[in-house]
Amino acid sequence: MATSAPIEHPAARRAAATGLRRYLPFLGWLGHYRRADLPSDMVAGIVTAIMLIPQSMAYAQLAGLPPQIGLYASVVPLIIYALLGTSGQLSVGPVAITSLLVFSGVSALAEAGSPRYIQLVLLLALIVGVMKLGLGLLRLGAMLNFISHPVLAAFTSASALIIAAGQLKYMLGYPIGGEHLYETLARAVAGLRQTNPATLALGGASIALLLFFRKGLRPLLRRAGLPPLAVTLIVSGAPLVTVIAGILVTWAWRLDQRAGVAGVGSIPSGLSPLSIPAVNSGDVQALLPAALAIVLVSVVESIAVAKALASKRRQAIDPDQELVALGAANLAASFFSGYPVTGGFARSVVNDQAGAVTGLASLITAGAIALILLFFTPLFFFLPQAVLAATVIVAVFGLVDLREPRRIWRTNRGDAVTWAITFAAVLLLGIEAGIFAGVGTSLAIYLWRTSRPHIAVVGRLGESEIYRNVERYQVQTWPDVVAMRVDESLYFANTRYLEEAILKLVAARPEVKHLVLIGTAINFIDSSALHTLEHLVDELHDAGVQLHLAAIKGPVMDRLAHSDFIARLGAEHIHLSTHDAMRALGHVT
Amino acid sequence: MATSAPIEHPAARRAAATGLRRYLPFLGWLGHYRRADLPSDMVAGIVTAIMLIPQSMAYAQLAGLPPQIGLYASVVPLIIYALLGTSGQLSVGPVAITSLLVFSGVSALAEAGSPRYIQLVLLLALIVGVMKLGLGLLRLGAMLNFISHPVLAAFTSASALIIAAGQLKYMLGYPIGGEHLYETLARAVAGLRQTNPATLALGGASIALLLFFRKGLRPLLRRAGLPPLAVTLIVSGAPLVTVIAGILVTWAWRLDQRAGVAGVGSIPSGLSPLSIPAVNSGDVQALLPAALAIVLVSVVESIAVAKALASKRRQAIDPDQELVALGAANLAASFFSGYPVTGGFARSVVNDQAGAVTGLASLITAGAIALILLFFTPLFFFLPQAVLAATVIVAVFGLVDLREPRRIWRTNRGDAVTWAITFAAVLLLGIEAGIFAGVGTSLAIYLWRTSRPHIAVVGRLGESEIYRNVERYQVQTWPDVVAMRVDESLYFANTRYLEEAILKLVAARPEVKHLVLIGTAINFIDSSALHTLEHLVDELHDAGVQLHLAAIKGPVMDRLAHSDFIARLGAEHIHLSTHDAMRALGHVT
Repeated sequence: MATSAPIEHPAARRAAATGLRRYLPFLGWLGHYRRADLPSDMVAGIVTAIMLIPQSMAYAQLAGLPPQIGLYASVVPLIIYALLGTSGQLSVGPVAITSLLVFSGVSALAEAGSPRYIQLVLLLALIVGVMKLGLGLLRLGAMLNFISHPVLAAFTSASALIIAAGQLKYMLGYPIGGEHLYETLARAVAGLRQTNPATLALGGASIALLLFFRKGLRPLLRRAGLPPLAVTLIVSGAPLVTVIAGILVTWAWRLDQRAGVAGVGSIPSGLSPLSIPAVNSGDVQALLPAALAIVLVSVVESIAVAKALASKRRQAIDPDQELVALGAANLAASFFSGYPVTGGFARSVVNDQAGAVTGLASLITAGAIALILLFFTPLFFFLPQAVLAATVIVAVFGLVDLREPRRIWRTNRGDAVTWAITFAAVLLLGIEAGIFAGVGTSLAIYLWRTSRPHIAVVGRLGESEIYRNVERYQVQTWPDVVAMRVDESLYFANTRYLEEAILKLVAARPEVKHLVLIGTAINFIDSSALHTLEHLVDELHDAGVQLHLAAIKGPVMDRLAHSDFIARLGAEHIHLSTHDAMRALGHVT
Repeated sequence: MATSAPIEHPAARRAAATGLRRYLPFLGWLGHYRRADLPSDMVAGIVTAIMLIPQSMAYAQLAGLPPQIGLYASVVPLIIYALLGTSGQLSVGPVAITSLLVFSGVSALAEAGSPRYIQLVLLLALIVGVMKLGLGLLRLGAMLNFISHPVLAAFTSASALIIAAGQLKYMLGYPIGGEHLYETLARAVAGLRQTNPATLALGGASIALLLFFRKGLRPLLRRAGLPPLAVTLIVSGAPLVTVIAGILVTWAWRLDQRAGVAGVGSIPSGLSPLSIPAVNSGDVQALLPAALAIVLVSVVESIAVAKALASKRRQAIDPDQELVALGAANLAASFFSGYPVTGGFARSVVNDQAGAVTGLASLITAGAIALILLFFTPLFFFLPQAVLAATVIVAVFGLVDLREPRRIWRTNRGDAVTWAITFAAVLLLGIEAGIFAGVGTSLAIYLWRTSRPHIAVVGRLGESEIYRNVERYQVQTWPDVVAMRVDESLYFANTRYLEEAILKLVAARPEVKHLVLIGTAINFIDSSALHTLEHLVDELHDAGVQLHLAAIKGPVMDRLAHSDFIARLGAEHIHLSTHDAMRALGHVT
């Protein structure tokens, strides 16, 4: 047992303790790197690279980009994040949903894969980078909290369906356009006769192989008693094994020439070339909605993952510094021929399970991808697009979660409405419009709820000093006084509702001479509410009713003290507690 | 002293008691009209008509419409409001700010005064009527509470300046255009040489006469011991006296022909002609922002006035029924050649002071205006525009209130920012953009505030069961437990902030084994917060910390009970109070 001094706010303590290291977190781990962590970071870095090689090419394909762009996005941005990020486990790079947002945002402005398309993608990465960096440096990361759980859940599930449908063209081997899910599906069905059998077979076999690794092999290896690290290593290799098998089969049987199987084509050798995004105000304006959507979604997901992984190790991440790091990584993507990157969920979990302790794991991953770019790109010549599509489909199917809306419905109907509106809007209006519709809906529901606060008329419980809702408890009341508790802070949107409720009550009960407003749940009061309260004093006075306040919190009292309100009400009508008010009115002793 | 039964909610009681009368309030007063109220309603009706005759023509001129449109808007809409409204004192008809919104909204689409302009104004009245009626019938009047006091105050002051500047052209006698205040002022100054001296003299004399009535005569009559009713009657007659004087002077000296004084021209005789607004989706879309701005501003003002006047008589008005009545009045304006109407502040106060008891006063006002339209319009032929402009200027100058922002600054800095942004936006961007900017700012500030809730670490006060902020009180704490009180409901925008604060605290204090979250100020919890709390249980568990909840309110417990949260947390970790939690942890007895 100890008597405390005031506890220092942990954020303040952290900032004071670390100084420059707050902004350059690698100073914290690179200088004092513990040798003991090296094997663990090495293994994690390599395992993550094995996962990232096929993923980066597959997600680039999803974003409407040549496969090397995905590899480029997996070198310099990773290095930058490793140096500036506060999570040692987060695996930054191309991810599925961001890739879809890139495609939907840029394909409306230029033909996918064209030089102008790639230029616009570089510009998009620049805008995303500047936005994240700006939010982080201004420490406005909290703005991203306005994307609620139902919005993110619905958005993720709906996007996964759109992504999967978008891969059908690679799986079936014929072009399928369509802006919205229903169009894509209708066109896929209409063109089924054009299916390329070899492509479909390769794609189908890849899906089967991937599912076997995930669903069949993992439990098998576990039952065989392999250590968890080995299981993680083998299972994470599934996409690479599938890719290698796909290349071998295509090469051995010459499926590209003999059966019309489309490959990714020749990938140039060499590290990420420097690139300078062409900034043009018209393009910037056209890309803004897509950039905003990418920032909202990617940061929320990325920070949530980093936080979850850090808390296990009893570490804390700094969300604003995370924004800085992700912003810088996107700038790197923009200047080194990449495309928008963020922290991926599945890959980060693997990185963590494989033992990543510090950012060195990410540096090793980046090094491995650099080696691929320097020496091994010719190997991918025979890689079929259908195999990459299969890895995307298997990866995103785990994101479709239709049990979540039912769970939300059980706990909160308003949030279930938000889920449904977001889900429908993403599928029917498009993914950017969908996310903005979702955010708008959740804000509107919150504002609506706080604009109609719960108001309880209370009475005295037995002979105690406790006052409770007359509708829930057998309590004592008096005809000449009404005591009301408002369960919400008073602000412009609910203050007139409160006023109306009070005036109606007073109009309905002419015997009432005193009205006691209880402030236990009022955390703040704005000037509109203050204005209404001032009016209320007069209005009640004209009606022969005296207003009293009871149990007002300190910060609220401070506001009242700065206004004319107390003079108007009379300080003698402010009471420390409801019981004090009743005592002053002579009803209790 | 009486032991209470649960008190019926007054709104429910009202609805049950009145039935059909809720929707047709005149059934309540017209059927049982008390003879004793008749003289009083008669006087009020006539006094209000005397005020409304010049006002309706002046505000029509401000709205860019011929004067008879103002008179038309003061007949049928008043009758409809009298039958459907719940206030016996509210004086509905043309008002200054709505007229300005009509002008700014429609003059961008057609030349003021042209037949197409009038057609668009009728359509605007139709849209406004449908919006108000819809909000009222759906009982969504509370949506209008989202216009906060600083927004309305800044909007009113800035609009009054714009209105006054817009009257300069009538006062000086030469055309002055300009979309924004600074343009209008610059052009007015640039054209000063073209001033028509007779017009300026007439306008200046009118302003002097009006100010004398208001500032000089009122105190004089009071001191002379006249009864307040007589003072009100005489002072409210000021605009009509000014108008009559202006007509006589112009007519006697033939100022229209000899000195180029512009008159309102010939006003056709006869009651409001029927009109059918031409509905066209392009026009409707173009008029929507103006309609929305009119609905927001006019209803807020109108209901505030009705409420204030009703509460003096210990009556309550029904805001949703008010919307229905105002909506129907605007439909009447649309179908009887009027323009958007609402309840005016100054006129309603006069109506009330003159003794209006029921809607009969408004019926009498409408009848008086109808008589003017039928028999007396030729008298207005010599009415100079400058005299009408003078009545507008004097009326709106009382609306400019520059002490209010200082008062707001003293009580709430955030609200002062809202005031300044709204004021600047109205003057620089225009009045519609200004009001939307204001509403957006006040919502953003509110959301920002609730997204960063006050979190207090608390300790035990002496040997009591009371726990208070460690930073404000000398309290007892224990090294292995942190008790935290969150002063805000938990919802998507603040839940991650809370999570971060908790994880940082835990990371900074490795000795902590138990975290008690105190819910006395948590009024509700949404599914995002629930989701975060579930994560938090696991994250804290991984870090070796047990989460506890204490003093959770009933509605919040209900939500938790519908989720898996309690199973995950363990029911034994939920405590009735903070003290109970400390007892369970063995720190107190």
